[in-house]
Amino acid sequence: MGESEVVSSSLAPEIAVRLKRDAHGLICAVVQSHETKEVLMVGWMDDEALHRTLTTGRATYWSRSRQELWRKGDTSGHVQHVRSVAIDCDGDALLVEVDQVGPACHTGTSTCFEAGGQLQVTSAPEEQA
Amino acid sequence: MGESEVVSSSLAPEIAVRLKRDAHGLICAVVQSHETKEVLMVGWMDDEALHRTLTTGRATYWSRSRQELWRKGDTSGHVQHVRSVAIDCDGDALLVEVDQVGPACHTGTSTCFEAGGQLQVTSAPEEQA
Repeated sequence: MGESEVVSSSLAPEIAVRLKRDAHGLICAVVQSHETKEVLMVGWMDDEALHRTLTTGRATYWSRSRQELWRKGDTSGHVQHVRSVAIDCDGDALLVEVDQVGPACHTGTSTCFEAGGQLQVTSAPEEQA
Repeated sequence: MGESEVVSSSLAPEIAVRLKRDAHGLICAVVQSHETKEVLMVGWMDDEALHRTLTTGRATYWSRSRQELWRKGDTSGHVQHVRSVAIDCDGDALLVEVDQVGPACHTGTSTCFEAGGQLQVTSAPEEQA
């Protein structure tokens, strides 16, 4: 699906016009804990997922593996209550601040980056000054 | 470029094998301020950009508009010194913690999400309980 073939959704037109979607009609959503400021996960939203996120108070994504809308927590109970949603300067990323119930990651860790872990950085900032 | 056609880079094979790249060979990188914990921007990395980010201490991205490697700050002076890099549970997102020099956004705001601004959330978390 190209940028000109957006699936019809209830998203407000003044918001829809600002989105720069990828070839699959999706925009990446960075999810941050309101309380701890930890980055919990990255999800993907189509227009309808963003509409539901903005209007229902529950973070909703497009599952690329299952190819369906996915309201976080419906299966796991690990709901995300939406505090705020910001869009970036060029309209191709969202920042969703949430109150996370339980762990954000399906592996059981509090964030998906904790689950994946650190990659070794072999040059410290001080060495670059 | 498909997942099987990764451009040759110096990235350590044990890291390269963990990456789940998009159709363009890229992985999304969430950039967070080490000091303030603000999410500053989202960038995109190919294998070589990640290699340079891990080994030079300077955050380096793939510019999708210019189709070239882009070391943040080379033009603007708004350098990002890399503190840590984590990968997520399924290998399709990175979290890069940086010491940001000056504003992160090319518009002059401290973050790209400040530049884009808030989208109206019409349902508060409390209403969903």
